[in-house]
Amino acid sequence: MPHVELEYPKQPYGTVKRYSPRATYALSTIHNIINTSPILHVSFNVPESPFPTILPMLGQMGSYARPSADEGDVLDLYLHGYVSSRLMNTSRDAKDGSSPAGLPVCVAASHVDGLVMALTPNAHSYNYRSAVLFGHAALVEDPAERLYAMELITNGVVPGAWSNTRVPPNKAELSSTSVLKVTVATGSAKIRSGPPADEKHDREDAGVADRVWTGVIPVYRAHGEPVAGPYSVAEVPSYITEYVNDANEGAREHAVETATKVLIKKVD
Amino acid sequence: MPHVELEYPKQPYGTVKRYSPRATYALSTIHNIINTSPILHVSFNVPESPFPTILPMLGQMGSYARPSADEGDVLDLYLHGYVSSRLMNTSRDAKDGSSPAGLPVCVAASHVDGLVMALTPNAHSYNYRSAVLFGHAALVEDPAERLYAMELITNGVVPGAWSNTRVPPNKAELSSTSVLKVTVATGSAKIRSGPPADEKHDREDAGVADRVWTGVIPVYRAHGEPVAGPYSVAEVPSYITEYVNDANEGAREHAVETATKVLIKKVD
Repeated sequence: MPHVELEYPKQPYGTVKRYSPRATYALSTIHNIINTSPILHVSFNVPESPFPTILPMLGQMGSYARPSADEGDVLDLYLHGYVSSRLMNTSRDAKDGSSPAGLPVCVAASHVDGLVMALTPNAHSYNYRSAVLFGHAALVEDPAERLYAMELITNGVVPGAWSNTRVPPNKAELSSTSVLKVTVATGSAKIRSGPPADEKHDREDAGVADRVWTGVIPVYRAHGEPVAGPYSVAEVPSYITEYVNDANEGAREHAVETATKVLIKKVD
Repeated sequence: MPHVELEYPKQPYGTVKRYSPRATYALSTIHNIINTSPILHVSFNVPESPFPTILPMLGQMGSYARPSADEGDVLDLYLHGYVSSRLMNTSRDAKDGSSPAGLPVCVAASHVDGLVMALTPNAHSYNYRSAVLFGHAALVEDPAERLYAMELITNGVVPGAWSNTRVPPNKAELSSTSVLKVTVATGSAKIRSGPPADEKHDREDAGVADRVWTGVIPVYRAHGEPVAGPYSVAEVPSYITEYVNDANEGAREHAVETATKVLIKKVD
């Protein structure tokens, strides 16, 4: 069977309109941007407020029904973070049966890979990867599924963090932890990579091109030397040192690579 | 006159309910988190969509009426990024006079300063600084104010970027750039710093405390060596090398400092 790359459906609310050649709807790309983002921004509406609100949360894509699913598969988004149960219940009661139960949310993740310095302010840009998902969030009630999500999210921060601590959580910990599951309706991503791209008239203007530096300042998330807390064993375990080294090396390499290389998009 | 630290008013939609000792309403803190965030997440509602949406945008706090205002003063948020003019106009038409014209938005900025590794998954946390602003966004129509905002935002990415490029923007550039001004209604911030804080029963459990490493992995935004583009002068100018060095040093120091030090909050 040939490999099929799954894509999210284009909906009026989820279609990229500006700089659309930078857009992708591939599940694997979108889920990877979400999974590698240390913080997700989750937006929803609050009754009686004139404004939508945004909460920063931790989350990972996963499939409780099929834990071996990979990033390119159909997945749910599990979020760790507190949303008032009054709000969650209001939202559940209001469902009209036409869509999954839960609170309508938009979830965003963005990585800056570089500052693109050009001849003019207008041609300045970022190299970046950003993704949004739209879906319905509901509290996970099943203790086994909550445990699955807690392990997924903990290992999403540092791989191996779960089994290297005191697990499983006790009853009080399990019951005090809120996990939301977002059933995804659709999503999209936008990516920019490569060097600056100024207008021809500026590139050919000697008074400009002869004095302005253009290029990319690579940007990446760095991890410093682990700092032991007041009640720790002395030796930093290998799952942490390996994570720090691998994450730093991978992030730096990606930022430097995208400073010069335009990641080629498939033509639709 | 004694120094007065301005605070945003606490509104039902803008008050931090969870871990409220971590909250602050000080304008200077909130504006600094916004101004040092390379990407802001802007949430608003779109007609006929069941979901709110989030756009990643660039922005800076400023005062066109009083450009010398500092971060602790009452400021507007200027955003660079495209929001369909149909949406902006719809929102303007819908105003009822009771609040400023414009689209109701929530703007979020979050910095991760460290991964807090604890004895249990539940006590794992981040050191972080996050802020949200609520307000009304309107397109800036006045060309002079738009120019002010473009310079503010460009220099917010790398100080000096504006004057080191070909400025001012020409007529086509000025008219094709969308700048939004958010009149802020209120805002809040949450900050965590310091080492892990496990429950007493886990710290006193020899089987746990004798085998688990706890502490903080500092996290910060790093800038790599600038990579020249295909049509650049050779030498990297000092405004860029100084920015890269200062930003790297400041960000690393802050992340390491907050790994051990709890930033003391005033008691309300």
